[in-house]
Amino acid sequence: MDIHDLKTRILAGERRALARAITLVESGRADHREQALLLLESLKGHGREALRVGMSGTPGVGKSTFIETFGLMLTGQGLKVAVLAVDPSSARSGGSILGDKTRMERLSRDRNAFIRPSPSQTQLGGVARRTREATDLCEAAGFDVVLIETVGVGQSETMVAEMSDLFLLLLAPAGGDELQGVKRGIMEMADILLVNKADGDLKATALRTCADYAGALRLLRKRPQDPEGFPKAMTVSALEDTGLAKAWDEMQSLEKWRRETGHFAARRAEQARFWFEAEVRERLLARLSREPVRGAMAALARQVEAGDLTPTAAAEELLRDHLQMD
Amino acid sequence: MDIHDLKTRILAGERRALARAITLVESGRADHREQALLLLESLKGHGREALRVGMSGTPGVGKSTFIETFGLMLTGQGLKVAVLAVDPSSARSGGSILGDKTRMERLSRDRNAFIRPSPSQTQLGGVARRTREATDLCEAAGFDVVLIETVGVGQSETMVAEMSDLFLLLLAPAGGDELQGVKRGIMEMADILLVNKADGDLKATALRTCADYAGALRLLRKRPQDPEGFPKAMTVSALEDTGLAKAWDEMQSLEKWRRETGHFAARRAEQARFWFEAEVRERLLARLSREPVRGAMAALARQVEAGDLTPTAAAEELLRDHLQMD
Repeated sequence: MDIHDLKTRILAGERRALARAITLVESGRADHREQALLLLESLKGHGREALRVGMSGTPGVGKSTFIETFGLMLTGQGLKVAVLAVDPSSARSGGSILGDKTRMERLSRDRNAFIRPSPSQTQLGGVARRTREATDLCEAAGFDVVLIETVGVGQSETMVAEMSDLFLLLLAPAGGDELQGVKRGIMEMADILLVNKADGDLKATALRTCADYAGALRLLRKRPQDPEGFPKAMTVSALEDTGLAKAWDEMQSLEKWRRETGHFAARRAEQARFWFEAEVRERLLARLSREPVRGAMAALARQVEAGDLTPTAAAEELLRDHLQMD
Repeated sequence: MDIHDLKTRILAGERRALARAITLVESGRADHREQALLLLESLKGHGREALRVGMSGTPGVGKSTFIETFGLMLTGQGLKVAVLAVDPSSARSGGSILGDKTRMERLSRDRNAFIRPSPSQTQLGGVARRTREATDLCEAAGFDVVLIETVGVGQSETMVAEMSDLFLLLLAPAGGDELQGVKRGIMEMADILLVNKADGDLKATALRTCADYAGALRLLRKRPQDPEGFPKAMTVSALEDTGLAKAWDEMQSLEKWRRETGHFAARRAEQARFWFEAEVRERLLARLSREPVRGAMAALARQVEAGDLTPTAAAEELLRDHLQMD
């Protein structure tokens, strides 16, 4: 593959080149990996920066409809929008069952939009690296907004928040009891809570739910990266396209404030460090899954299970004899 | 230190030798560590096996009173009882504020009991290894029961459950709503739930709470290591010493069943493997905190923060140049 040619075409905004580059960074093959690193390094310094918007919400909350309506609104303003998905269930099953493009039919046909389903990977760590690299590629390709979407389960939300400039939490209208179902940790990550489905019969409930969340947000500790009034809760209807323009206004004013105060750049630097350290840890531990260490570890584990060696002595032996450690 | 002499005295059941050996395994000094490993290896094959009873309960539930009453009951039957504590807050503060011996005054004066406070350590991993090793030492010293106590917070419960043959969860009488406060994961680890303070004004509440927990336990998935009727919920009063003999009967019948069906030995083997693998991972990652890797990592992190290197390229460089990895 001609990496220089691919680079030129990505910088020219060619969608097929972008898609091909993302396939390259998603590949597990060693030669692809090498090419991907070359490409990513060669693309540094292009000076383009997208707004990275992380987004989470449990299934049924209307995420696809929101992304479709929101994405079309942005492309309607002349902005280029990329949508990347991080789906832990697809990571488990090895591929999403319903393609993301089917879920967002109109947006996927928009020439200023680019939708990429979740990479199929067995490890969340692998998905994280691939999504981060795909985001870098979208930035290089000149996208203005990169939406990184995930479902509201487990660690994938933390992961997406760690690669986003802003984090949105999409919520459904609900009774007071259900409000407690949103984990405190997730609330604390969010910059804007959007109570969706504020339409028809659910409108009143949505407004009440929004007020409840606003109350809950006021109880959280103030974060240095938030201007007055943030994090905030708002109602939207993705179906009727109401509230989305206002939500975008809020996102932009938050972005502006964070840029002016230096929080935007500081957060990106901090995130880069976070991912560097996470990748070092992950790859160091990956040594344990590769031969000959894996085999030696299994043999020692059998001795430990049989009671012939203490766990500590076995660990010492593995580290000393197979991992070049004292 | 004469390790052979220490070994002989531990096997003879000398309490001071045991205390000294535990101090040795708790030490962070490299020469102490080496001696501790020699001692532990030399003590293998003594053929003694204690029943390891893990125990958790939030502060205020009456854990100290329970251990005191329960421990005295066991020593009254001629059994030797060791009590080890795992206290994450003492791990943070570098030592428990109130000594464990003060909390259990009568038991601490009993010559068939041995009480050891939580080791002061900053890392839970370090506390885990030291507590496991202290348990091994107590077994070698001929103790019949080793109670490993922890407070009901965070990961320390999982840790204690992973080094116990039986796991007790001590609970307070409570209203129906508070029942939900016990995390499902903790419930699933427990073999016996003990609702304490079933005395005086709280007796009726305790009985109701116990019935609620029994109902909750029936909803859990059946585990292969449980005979009919387990896990179970019971009421006790540590203050009035009621229900404890029955609880001990249940523990013994559970132990007997698990021994006969092979679950007891299988679980110990599985735990040994778990700790072996955990220790390998922990010590592998510890390389990152030691010079010269630590310094190299900090320097690369600064380049990553400045945007001069991608997280992936920096991780590659660290692993290749400083951790002898391809």
